[in-house]
Amino acid sequence: MTNQSPKAPQSNAIDNTGFSPNSSAEGGRLTNKDGRINLRKSGVPLYERVSIYHSLLHMNHVVFTLTVFAIYTCLNLSFAAFYYLIGIDHLNGTHAEGDFIQDFLQAFFFSSQTLTTVGYGHISPVGFVTNVVASLESFIGIMSFALVTGMFYARFSRPKAYIRFSPSLLVAPFKGGRALMLRLATYKNNHLTDADAQVTLAVHVEEDGKTVTKFYPLPLEINHINSLALSWTIVHPLDDKSPLRDYTEQDFIDCKIELMITIKAFDDHFSNTVQQRTSYTQDELVYGAKFIPMYARSDDGNYTNLMLEKINLYEKVVLPA
Amino acid sequence: MTNQSPKAPQSNAIDNTGFSPNSSAEGGRLTNKDGRINLRKSGVPLYERVSIYHSLLHMNHVVFTLTVFAIYTCLNLSFAAFYYLIGIDHLNGTHAEGDFIQDFLQAFFFSSQTLTTVGYGHISPVGFVTNVVASLESFIGIMSFALVTGMFYARFSRPKAYIRFSPSLLVAPFKGGRALMLRLATYKNNHLTDADAQVTLAVHVEEDGKTVTKFYPLPLEINHINSLALSWTIVHPLDDKSPLRDYTEQDFIDCKIELMITIKAFDDHFSNTVQQRTSYTQDELVYGAKFIPMYARSDDGNYTNLMLEKINLYEKVVLPA
Amino acid sequence: MTNQSPKAPQSNAIDNTGFSPNSSAEGGRLTNKDGRINLRKSGVPLYERVSIYHSLLHMNHVVFTLTVFAIYTCLNLSFAAFYYLIGIDHLNGTHAEGDFIQDFLQAFFFSSQTLTTVGYGHISPVGFVTNVVASLESFIGIMSFALVTGMFYARFSRPKAYIRFSPSLLVAPFKGGRALMLRLATYKNNHLTDADAQVTLAVHVEEDGKTVTKFYPLPLEINHINSLALSWTIVHPLDDKSPLRDYTEQDFIDCKIELMITIKAFDDHFSNTVQQRTSYTQDELVYGAKFIPMYARSDDGNYTNLMLEKINLYEKVVLPA
Amino acid sequence: MTNQSPKAPQSNAIDNTGFSPNSSAEGGRLTNKDGRINLRKSGVPLYERVSIYHSLLHMNHVVFTLTVFAIYTCLNLSFAAFYYLIGIDHLNGTHAEGDFIQDFLQAFFFSSQTLTTVGYGHISPVGFVTNVVASLESFIGIMSFALVTGMFYARFSRPKAYIRFSPSLLVAPFKGGRALMLRLATYKNNHLTDADAQVTLAVHVEEDGKTVTKFYPLPLEINHINSLALSWTIVHPLDDKSPLRDYTEQDFIDCKIELMITIKAFDDHFSNTVQQRTSYTQDELVYGAKFIPMYARSDDGNYTNLMLEKINLYEKVVLPA
Repeated sequence: MTNQSPKAPQSNAIDNTGFSPNSSAEGGRLTNKDGRINLRKSGVPLYERVSIYHSLLHMNHVVFTLTVFAIYTCLNLSFAAFYYLIGIDHLNGTHAEGDFIQDFLQAFFFSSQTLTTVGYGHISPVGFVTNVVASLESFIGIMSFALVTGMFYARFSRPKAYIRFSPSLLVAPFKGGRALMLRLATYKNNHLTDADAQVTLAVHVEEDGKTVTKFYPLPLEINHINSLALSWTIVHPLDDKSPLRDYTEQDFIDCKIELMITIKAFDDHFSNTVQQRTSYTQDELVYGAKFIPMYARSDDGNYTNLMLEKINLYEKVVLPA
Repeated sequence: MTNQSPKAPQSNAIDNTGFSPNSSAEGGRLTNKDGRINLRKSGVPLYERVSIYHSLLHMNHVVFTLTVFAIYTCLNLSFAAFYYLIGIDHLNGTHAEGDFIQDFLQAFFFSSQTLTTVGYGHISPVGFVTNVVASLESFIGIMSFALVTGMFYARFSRPKAYIRFSPSLLVAPFKGGRALMLRLATYKNNHLTDADAQVTLAVHVEEDGKTVTKFYPLPLEINHINSLALSWTIVHPLDDKSPLRDYTEQDFIDCKIELMITIKAFDDHFSNTVQQRTSYTQDELVYGAKFIPMYARSDDGNYTNLMLEKINLYEKVVLPA
Repeated sequence: MTNQSPKAPQSNAIDNTGFSPNSSAEGGRLTNKDGRINLRKSGVPLYERVSIYHSLLHMNHVVFTLTVFAIYTCLNLSFAAFYYLIGIDHLNGTHAEGDFIQDFLQAFFFSSQTLTTVGYGHISPVGFVTNVVASLESFIGIMSFALVTGMFYARFSRPKAYIRFSPSLLVAPFKGGRALMLRLATYKNNHLTDADAQVTLAVHVEEDGKTVTKFYPLPLEINHINSLALSWTIVHPLDDKSPLRDYTEQDFIDCKIELMITIKAFDDHFSNTVQQRTSYTQDELVYGAKFIPMYARSDDGNYTNLMLEKINLYEKVVLPA
Repeated sequence: MTNQSPKAPQSNAIDNTGFSPNSSAEGGRLTNKDGRINLRKSGVPLYERVSIYHSLLHMNHVVFTLTVFAIYTCLNLSFAAFYYLIGIDHLNGTHAEGDFIQDFLQAFFFSSQTLTTVGYGHISPVGFVTNVVASLESFIGIMSFALVTGMFYARFSRPKAYIRFSPSLLVAPFKGGRALMLRLATYKNNHLTDADAQVTLAVHVEEDGKTVTKFYPLPLEINHINSLALSWTIVHPLDDKSPLRDYTEQDFIDCKIELMITIKAFDDHFSNTVQQRTSYTQDELVYGAKFIPMYARSDDGNYTNLMLEKINLYEKVVLPA
């Protein structure tokens, strides 16, 4: 038994990953499953720290729609309050009922007709102040919808890779030895070409009694394919060139390995380079298993069928000693 | 007569095409004429599998316009139904005729005036519910048109190569031997520079009694041109470096060859890289023919005329033995 | 005196320019001053041959605005004709005057209020047909403006290099010998980095009694600069490595040289690669001249002043024999 | 003591920076802190020299909003003047008060209702001229808002690096010697990958009694990182390969050094290459200091916290002799 535990890889570590070797300064995994760095920023005001554009791109559709609707309603309510305070007798076509709710509603409906520029006109502004407010509101309405138009476009035109990764990372038999394997495929009607894969390994080892994080590039059997047509199994052979060549199942766990993978490819329809990342930790490692093919000829024989529900389908196997 | 039929190429096959060597799992040709992979995906719900953006980009103009119009009409009808159900007496300016069609039409016209925000006002909403629905409808109207604006823009600003390929793939005489030739040209008023061509061959051969698909990159006489000004004839010489060097006309058919070609270039006006693909099978092969030039000096001598109708014009010739 | 006139360059010509060596098939110069290839396409219907997007991007601002206004007016007139034919008594708020011009004008104004969705409502549609037409018109109005919004955006967001080239190409003294020189600078408040220049020469020489076009890449003193901050003088030394090394002033004219230059750079603000081309023929050649610097320290000493009006400023000099 | 002061670097200068070696023609620093070249252009009319697109991209949000509002108000006022001059008796629903302000206000409110296409209709145009002007105004309204929509989108979708640089450039101890160090980090919720740094040094030295500017590329300890996750300290060792290897604190000042740095990286969310530049002069140099780490494990241990307020935090140290 050596005094160094967990076992450090024998290869040369690299220091240009952008992550720090200082394990004690980093918390949790380095990269989340969704590819975002597990990091928060502080020390600048929120409005400087947050790119509204980036945030709006990341909201899901429901949250985005609700956000827009909420802003629309707030604007509406604010202007309704203005009209109510000015006095709804300045809104021709309404009749003051003396009842707060009834009166406010009339102001609210006029407000919404102005904001959307539908402007039926059965209610119309009277007097200087009301006219100015209405003029401002229709201006703000158009500006807001200009912004929303832009956001909508940005959201659905955003180049994305639409790649699905197998949730599991396998240690599988490969050419008489072992290999780390994961599988990926595009899940939408997009098509990626000239796809490159880059895999970086992080291990946590002890050095001089201190835990440090070390990084290694993992050589792949194939790291470039012309066309990401079917599924692509990323293979890192655990052979002489691997920093993990003599790792046992226990070593993977002890070193708290984290495998970060980046796929960069060209999307035909966006005519743009797209990129997607994910990471695997020892928790997602399945030791001794191999993937089962996920595509087959269609029943009518005219096309190939890619079955995405099988992306994580594997069978347990015994690995060579 | 050898026991191996069809004839396998003598070169080394490649395995990074993204396609599978497993012929029995693939159906039909690998790539369609329009460059899309001949593949369907299953196992994820439709809404996850389909990128609305990609779909809308691929619809032709007529289908797209009809789709938008259909959605507009459906929205209109739905809201008309709401107004009708609430009661058209809540629409000031209409008069209930008791006749379903007449009444529904009035609701429908009010709805369309609200959805487009034209809001003449000769019909106007009365009462809480109608006002809320109308307010919502004009909001939805603006949101929908924001989406449509984005889609319109995405469609006509989408970087595309606008390349036309010759429908036929020729086996033509070339420098005392033979060569595979196809021809291409841009057919719009766009201009491509730094164009790269990449050609991959798929052949179906028997190995150990099983049909496998093998892939070979085909070296080209010229695989990069500075400017795709005129037509470009892609030439793969059937010489010593070709995996198809000793193929007879029958061999091309027996091996069910498929030739996949990708053109990648920079478009000046989009300031973007564009890419277009197509494929040729043995059915599109013409054995013993050569292309006839498709450009000529204009009558007034001031410019060059590229005649796109001649892109597939060839004459039959006898090939060297 | 040799029997070969004009004089052919001694270097190896290249054949991957995308242009044809067949001089008799090409008319006029190869590339126009504005960088477009001097070529027209025929053989496909106009609507297939023309990319509306590319065309709209190239119109100047005045023509574009007039085009949009003309389409708006035509749409307006067409719908006005519809309303007039249906009968303006179906437009509530108008009064049939029996006078064609008066009646048509009322229909026209209603039409324009519908198309822009301003919909005052003092004129409003009555009856089934008029309502349907009005509903359609407001729909078409919004769709058209969606298109126009997209076009406007495409036009002013289009990545462009905004480079101005010196109208003249000089043969200037350089390091005891001669060099071809041209000068360029960006003329807007944009900034290009990582700029690459590529220069290709075309000469027309006789070969076997036939005029052929031959192409040569011209090596440059500097073909890449980090930042296109000031002006950049492109220098091709007429030394041993030049295909034009022993050309006299008359040779340049006899060979009808054409020098095609492409600048490719990265624009910070577009975050995009931009490209601009131009060409020079023997008519734009000034034999024996050198450029005068076009920038100077500002009067207050705080910045550098780039004087774009001096881009073609040169003085005549005597060249070394 | 040598007769050459300030001290010239011993390495070979480069001449492809795009800047001029002619110190007397250049005023002030070469590159401003915000990365823009310290240069103005003259000799072309303003409208040709200024790209409206570039200008609108650079305005801050407040100025942009005010500009749009000012244009909206001017358009409104101009059209109001038209209506007033035509006579407000041509605006049905208004009543001429004989009072200039009252009458003009009515014209103004009608104008704003037309420009925004809200068109209540309680005021409506009467007569040929007024109708034509109103028709034109609503057209102009829609066109203007189309433009503004495009601008809004362009502004918030513009790919930007969002990098913050340390205000100070340190001369810090490094591997037993000294190194120039600066620090940078992204300050928004964006993520950059494949980041490249390029550093160019400008020094002003005397040559033949004339001050000339000389440029040197500075080799970096690490000039590429895979992921700009945490902060990145750019390190130029002042060792044998450095043109500044034997510079003392006084030399840095005497030579008026300027260090220009460019970061180029790929942004995941824009799916685009972004670039940011800045420069440091001798005024921003701190001789004898080292940066203090700016990230730490979060309190709950689940993520890493990047503290942007510490980007310029350093402590003074004594440098090795």
